[in-house]
Amino acid sequence: MKSLAAFVFPGFETLDYFGPMEMLGGLGQETKIITVAQTLDPVASVHGQRIVPDAQISDGATYDLLLIPGGDTALQAAKDAALLAWLRDTSSKAERVMTVCTGSILLGASGVLDGKRATTNKRDFVATVPLAPKVDWVKEARWVRDGKFYTSSGVSAGMDMALAVMADLFGMALADRIALGCEYEWHKDSTRDPFAHLAGLV
Amino acid sequence: MKSLAAFVFPGFETLDYFGPMEMLGGLGQETKIITVAQTLDPVASVHGQRIVPDAQISDGATYDLLLIPGGDTALQAAKDAALLAWLRDTSSKAERVMTVCTGSILLGASGVLDGKRATTNKRDFVATVPLAPKVDWVKEARWVRDGKFYTSSGVSAGMDMALAVMADLFGMALADRIALGCEYEWHKDSTRDPFAHLAGLV
Repeated sequence: MKSLAAFVFPGFETLDYFGPMEMLGGLGQETKIITVAQTLDPVASVHGQRIVPDAQISDGATYDLLLIPGGDTALQAAKDAALLAWLRDTSSKAERVMTVCTGSILLGASGVLDGKRATTNKRDFVATVPLAPKVDWVKEARWVRDGKFYTSSGVSAGMDMALAVMADLFGMALADRIALGCEYEWHKDSTRDPFAHLAGLV
Repeated sequence: MKSLAAFVFPGFETLDYFGPMEMLGGLGQETKIITVAQTLDPVASVHGQRIVPDAQISDGATYDLLLIPGGDTALQAAKDAALLAWLRDTSSKAERVMTVCTGSILLGASGVLDGKRATTNKRDFVATVPLAPKVDWVKEARWVRDGKFYTSSGVSAGMDMALAVMADLFGMALADRIALGCEYEWHKDSTRDPFAHLAGLV
């Protein structure tokens, strides 16, 4: 059983969060998901759905896994010093740390990814990666693993990355079973990224 | 601007609901999403995330669009007479009605799909379709449109169906833009369904 801190902030991108939830929650018994936020008040996604947090960052709890979604408002969240401190502390104690889309910029702004390979969404790539200039940003990748850090490209890429994490933690057979249960055609090749081409990055 | 009633019930399948939310919420201004539940209490998904409803079925409101997710607990929800009455009434007044996975069984149990072509997930197909015996169930389809009714296969298929609805309502260019923004490789062919083969249905 792994505990997963799934962080939400106001305006988070809906599928960045709930796509990985579906995959990481896959077989129920394997992961205990805790929604963590800056306060215990309901947090609205960019599409307006309000989520009730289970815990807040001031709790000081530690978790085995950490998921950080993105969203246009991630760049605003990246200015919150208390949040950046929580990201540093929680990341340092976690076994696996995952980001989706501009969640990579948010984690990058905390300094945790300095010197590491990472990716983020391709449409905003050029505009956003300067906010974390010491990260070794990878232009063409569905997701990137560097040690315990998994960072994904935009929105839907979080599902493929989450399945890769499940495969690493629990074996490919389990990850395949989760994808099949979702009738999801998993993109298993982390280096395949048509959106990098469409965005003119490569 | 279209109003969208996105129905949730205890134990709903996370991605059945939030995948279409990402696509239908696509360009913000085009849709106003209202989360509707049996009561106004927070509703937990199968993975434990608690959602705060915006409205309840007893409100008597009407909506342009209706989305019904699935989940193992959809079969239990299908025994709630007040809910089935709401589904019949809301469907009859809506311009488009969408179901994902066993959400099709739930809507089917209300009688609304009698005589219409529809699909549901493939793993549970044989076990669940007898619960709505007058529906013309389609074994092999990513999603099926019959008039204003769009029914999809399992979990991730809801995203493809939702993009098809956006294309029908607002044009293919908008749907393509939403998919691109999500870095999502949209499966546009509604008849392509590898999971029907994997489940031995065809």
